Amino acid sequence: MPRAVSDGGESIDTDVASRTSSHRRVDSVHQHGHGYNVGVPPKKSLFAEFSDAVKETFFADDPLRQYKDLPRSKKIWLGLEQVFPVLGWGRNYSLGKFKGDLIAGLTIASLCIPQDIGYSKLANLPPQVGLYSSFVPPLIYAAMGSSRDIAIGPVAVVSLLLGTLLQNEIDPNTHPLEYSRLAFTATFFAGVTQAALGFFRLGFIIEFLSHAAIVGFMAGAAITIALQQLKGFLGIAHFTKKSDIVSVMKSVWGNVHHGWNWQTILIGASFLAFLLVAKYIGKKNKKLFWVSAIAPLISVIISTFFVYITRADKHGVAIVKNIKKGINPPSASLIYFSGPYLATGFRVGAVAGMIGLTEAIAIGRTFAALKGYQIDGNKEMVALGTMNIVGSMTSCYVATGSFSRSAVNYMAGCKTAVSNVVMATVVMLTLLLITPLFKYTPNAILSSIIISAVLGLIDYESAYLIWKVDKLDFLACLGAFIGVIFSSVEYGLLVAVAISLAKILLQVTRPRTALLGNLPRTTIYRNVEQYPDATKVPGVLIVRVDSAIYFTNSNYIKERILRWLRDEEEQQQDQKLSKIEFLIVELSPVIDIDTSGIHALEELLKALQKRKIQLVLANPGPVVIQKLRSAKFTDLIGEDKIFLTVSDAVKKFAPKVVDNV
Amino acid sequence: MPRAVSDGGESIDTDVASRTSSHRRVDSVHQHGHGYNVGVPPKKSLFAEFSDAVKETFFADDPLRQYKDLPRSKKIWLGLEQVFPVLGWGRNYSLGKFKGDLIAGLTIASLCIPQDIGYSKLANLPPQVGLYSSFVPPLIYAAMGSSRDIAIGPVAVVSLLLGTLLQNEIDPNTHPLEYSRLAFTATFFAGVTQAALGFFRLGFIIEFLSHAAIVGFMAGAAITIALQQLKGFLGIAHFTKKSDIVSVMKSVWGNVHHGWNWQTILIGASFLAFLLVAKYIGKKNKKLFWVSAIAPLISVIISTFFVYITRADKHGVAIVKNIKKGINPPSASLIYFSGPYLATGFRVGAVAGMIGLTEAIAIGRTFAALKGYQIDGNKEMVALGTMNIVGSMTSCYVATGSFSRSAVNYMAGCKTAVSNVVMATVVMLTLLLITPLFKYTPNAILSSIIISAVLGLIDYESAYLIWKVDKLDFLACLGAFIGVIFSSVEYGLLVAVAISLAKILLQVTRPRTALLGNLPRTTIYRNVEQYPDATKVPGVLIVRVDSAIYFTNSNYIKERILRWLRDEEEQQQDQKLSKIEFLIVELSPVIDIDTSGIHALEELLKALQKRKIQLVLANPGPVVIQKLRSAKFTDLIGEDKIFLTVSDAVKKFAPKVVDNV
Repeated sequence: MPRAVSDGGESIDTDVASRTSSHRRVDSVHQHGHGYNVGVPPKKSLFAEFSDAVKETFFADDPLRQYKDLPRSKKIWLGLEQVFPVLGWGRNYSLGKFKGDLIAGLTIASLCIPQDIGYSKLANLPPQVGLYSSFVPPLIYAAMGSSRDIAIGPVAVVSLLLGTLLQNEIDPNTHPLEYSRLAFTATFFAGVTQAALGFFRLGFIIEFLSHAAIVGFMAGAAITIALQQLKGFLGIAHFTKKSDIVSVMKSVWGNVHHGWNWQTILIGASFLAFLLVAKYIGKKNKKLFWVSAIAPLISVIISTFFVYITRADKHGVAIVKNIKKGINPPSASLIYFSGPYLATGFRVGAVAGMIGLTEAIAIGRTFAALKGYQIDGNKEMVALGTMNIVGSMTSCYVATGSFSRSAVNYMAGCKTAVSNVVMATVVMLTLLLITPLFKYTPNAILSSIIISAVLGLIDYESAYLIWKVDKLDFLACLGAFIGVIFSSVEYGLLVAVAISLAKILLQVTRPRTALLGNLPRTTIYRNVEQYPDATKVPGVLIVRVDSAIYFTNSNYIKERILRWLRDEEEQQQDQKLSKIEFLIVELSPVIDIDTSGIHALEELLKALQKRKIQLVLANPGPVVIQKLRSAKFTDLIGEDKIFLTVSDAVKKFAPKVVDNV
Repeated sequence: MPRAVSDGGESIDTDVASRTSSHRRVDSVHQHGHGYNVGVPPKKSLFAEFSDAVKETFFADDPLRQYKDLPRSKKIWLGLEQVFPVLGWGRNYSLGKFKGDLIAGLTIASLCIPQDIGYSKLANLPPQVGLYSSFVPPLIYAAMGSSRDIAIGPVAVVSLLLGTLLQNEIDPNTHPLEYSRLAFTATFFAGVTQAALGFFRLGFIIEFLSHAAIVGFMAGAAITIALQQLKGFLGIAHFTKKSDIVSVMKSVWGNVHHGWNWQTILIGASFLAFLLVAKYIGKKNKKLFWVSAIAPLISVIISTFFVYITRADKHGVAIVKNIKKGINPPSASLIYFSGPYLATGFRVGAVAGMIGLTEAIAIGRTFAALKGYQIDGNKEMVALGTMNIVGSMTSCYVATGSFSRSAVNYMAGCKTAVSNVVMATVVMLTLLLITPLFKYTPNAILSSIIISAVLGLIDYESAYLIWKVDKLDFLACLGAFIGVIFSSVEYGLLVAVAISLAKILLQVTRPRTALLGNLPRTTIYRNVEQYPDATKVPGVLIVRVDSAIYFTNSNYIKERILRWLRDEEEQQQDQKLSKIEFLIVELSPVIDIDTSGIHALEELLKALQKRKIQLVLANPGPVVIQKLRSAKFTDLIGEDKIFLTVSDAVKKFAPKVVDNV
């Protein structure tokens, strides 16, 4: 049955329109063949419109859905389970699962201990702080997090970011206490930022960092971190504080004659070779992944023993020296809640927190997709935030999900977050019992371990795929990469975000338009460039606009349509074809229009009227038709110029052509 | 004839695909009925892709088109005509046209003289500078500009902007020379910015200021300007320098007991009443527009004469006092090309230049549309820029197109830019001969003239239309308005741009998706919300994605599709309908996809495979199909799952339903 165009207006004006439309209703059955007019959805009230928009923006996942029609006690339990997923999966926990978690937990513990010590150096913090951060945060996450595969702890990129941003404020060598106080402050605010983003359901903000930008940023950060390790690897005492490649290379070559220590290089290089071989084995044969997982710990043990026996530290081989024994001391009183460092801590914390989130969410989603379960981004952010807030009060610095350790966790067969608990227990025992044994661990080993770990962050396969698929995306990737290695981590980040956003805006400013033609023997109209068989309809120009029509592009779209028309008219003059009398604008892809867009359509209409060409619209969407009616553009163009499909419009205005079909 | 999907690959892999596809080609005739597969456009080379993008972004209007196939001398002449359109229209200039231009020129001259004096006070500059700016710039524009209706000179909003921004740097009362030097510097850089934007074809940048934002900004600026006039209108000597409404109202009421001057108020109020009545008459009867056009000059003459006779200036009525006689002195040597004010001048000039451009281009486009000729935005910018550069060297401040005077120019029957020449000549004669006569003009009259002029900038009809059409647009409008009146002009501008961009980004982050249903007795599939007649196909869920799939929305789109599926499955369980086996994603509106988007599709595919639901794509556009192939997603999903239309896909997977049609 044909549907009325009118939306049942109240004023006399609309009444007339509705009477007219019922007239047309009768004709339209004849005109359109199938008898459908363009539907106008019922107008929503302002409140409904607003609440729908809020719901779709902030509650896209419909979080309260499962609470429908449940008794109160059940609701409370479900609510608790929402905050502490452990209450859910804990009930079905079994010995079989624990076996998997135990092995995975032990494996990632062996990997995390040397990494933690190395990463804390990257953040200019004492080595035990790295270990602290692998004890408390994983325990909190195990109770609150929803990922089963993520391995929590300090990570290379965030450590580097924190280290460079904080040392701009306080010198960690001359003022170690103030520096660590500032680090705890930043950690606190990183947690607050993360939890707030999740709580206020603003998690979509991190999606403004595109995949391409992350690939470039990570690769740049990996190279920067590897370059920083040249200090420990070559045994250079006076090293630059800057992180860009030019300063670092200058520092490295400037020290070549009297700053390099051959014993250090020998130890570092041989163990780096060992680590890389282990990594290669683990990659070639997935069953031997544990070789690469325990290689770092083995390197630490062997090299520490070696240095202890040969006393190589007396020959200039730098060693870890002292790691404080005992578990995390409280640090809540150390956080700056006032004074000039409050703002700095907040700023640095917010940036580090966002990067931490991006990394953790990406990891969580990757492994969730592999195992086929869902991750709730916002809930995950609350868990990560809480863990960092608690961490900042127990002498930890920013922890998040680690790419390399999560992969090992997954491959070692972890089943639940209990593997994080196992890891935390091992780290606790290490802190309580064996930290003094790390005294003779050479720094070069830690550097080798970090270098071999961060090389995995360079995802050249993704970069190549990005290059193949989208050149502008690749530019964002390259921009982030170059920004990080030639300037600084923050700058690279800024470049990545800027290019990502510019790409969207450019797309919105210069959208595509296409000429449509008829696929012979069908009623289908398609882009003539994509379908060379598609034939143009004589006397009719059909243009499709492939974007929402907004102020940024409304003028361009108007002028582009007029240019299509001009080109076509010239071509038709050359070939002496019939004059164009109708311009059909296919609006299917036009999902929205604003006041500037309607202005542009009005101007297009005027320009066409001067040339005696009729403007016809095909298939406007619900939002577009509603707005065109609100602005009375439908009256201006005439309701009989708006069709359900291009085919309907052609049938009406060029019936001969269609008869030939 | 059916078309092959393969793009003629070279590797063995693609060969297999192409053989498979030729197999399918035979079936597809049977399957699809009409026998068309999704077309893959020939792949462009990197260079072609890049140069096409550059061309579409910067040379959308194809400026070199008219030079094709022409002899060299003709090309040079055309090139000159491009830069100086006067060479084109000048050849056909006639006495008939001059009659129109003369009347229009005289009318706008009578309007501009009092306005210029008033606006220069708004910019804290001596009154003659306003007149200078109505002499040189209009002459340059007449030779270079392409609009026939625009009236060039100082305008209220730019004067206010310049005045507030510059007085933050230098106090115009204590350091008048340095202040005017800075003003010329800003004017110079405003011109450079404008010309550069045009020359480098970056004109589209000004389109980032939406129509809604401009309406709000202009209304806010008008109210701010009117409030500023209370100083002259009430005769207050000590007035605040801030422009926000709170400071101004405080200043006004704080002076109520001893700061107001009743003689001034009497003169101001009576002439404001006269001006408003004249304006009302001009608006009611379009033929009497000249009443409102000459009312300001008449007010100035009468009030000056009145003050001269009564010597009201001795009773506290502030007067203009001294206007320097003679035409523009050179000022090139006054521009700061070095020193600390260079940067300030550049910053202020760039902002003022952009606002000036926005206003001039909007006016130019409006009147060009009314008379049905084209305006070239980029060329126009070069003209405006050159005119301001020359202006800055001849003691002018930033000039642009004035809304009110251009409307009068149009209504007075101007034919070409010669009306600007007439106006400039009158202003020149004024400067040479009669400036001393303005000595006794009361400031209150200038304030009344400005108030009555800027009231026209408050476009409440547009604001109401914006409210009706798009609530978010209205928010941008309101934000700009409130920002300007409660804080400052710059701040309001910033708010306007920020809201405009945020709106686009929000749209890109949370795009619409729709469930499609079949319109009975057709092969058309449409949004079930817009067309309640549309019926869902049992066992098949059809979802349309109404946006490009980018990193900002890829996760949302994936999860939203899964939510549609979940909702539908629940509904079907309740109603005991057949299980959903196919998910058709209609990609017609998806104009582009990036690597994150392809990832999201891969994850969607995995999630569906777990539930034993087949993913089917319908009508991917040229860019999308190319990228899906580059990323080998087409192999993953299977080429036989990609259809030309939803109807084809339904025919294949739910043939029974279609048979019933």
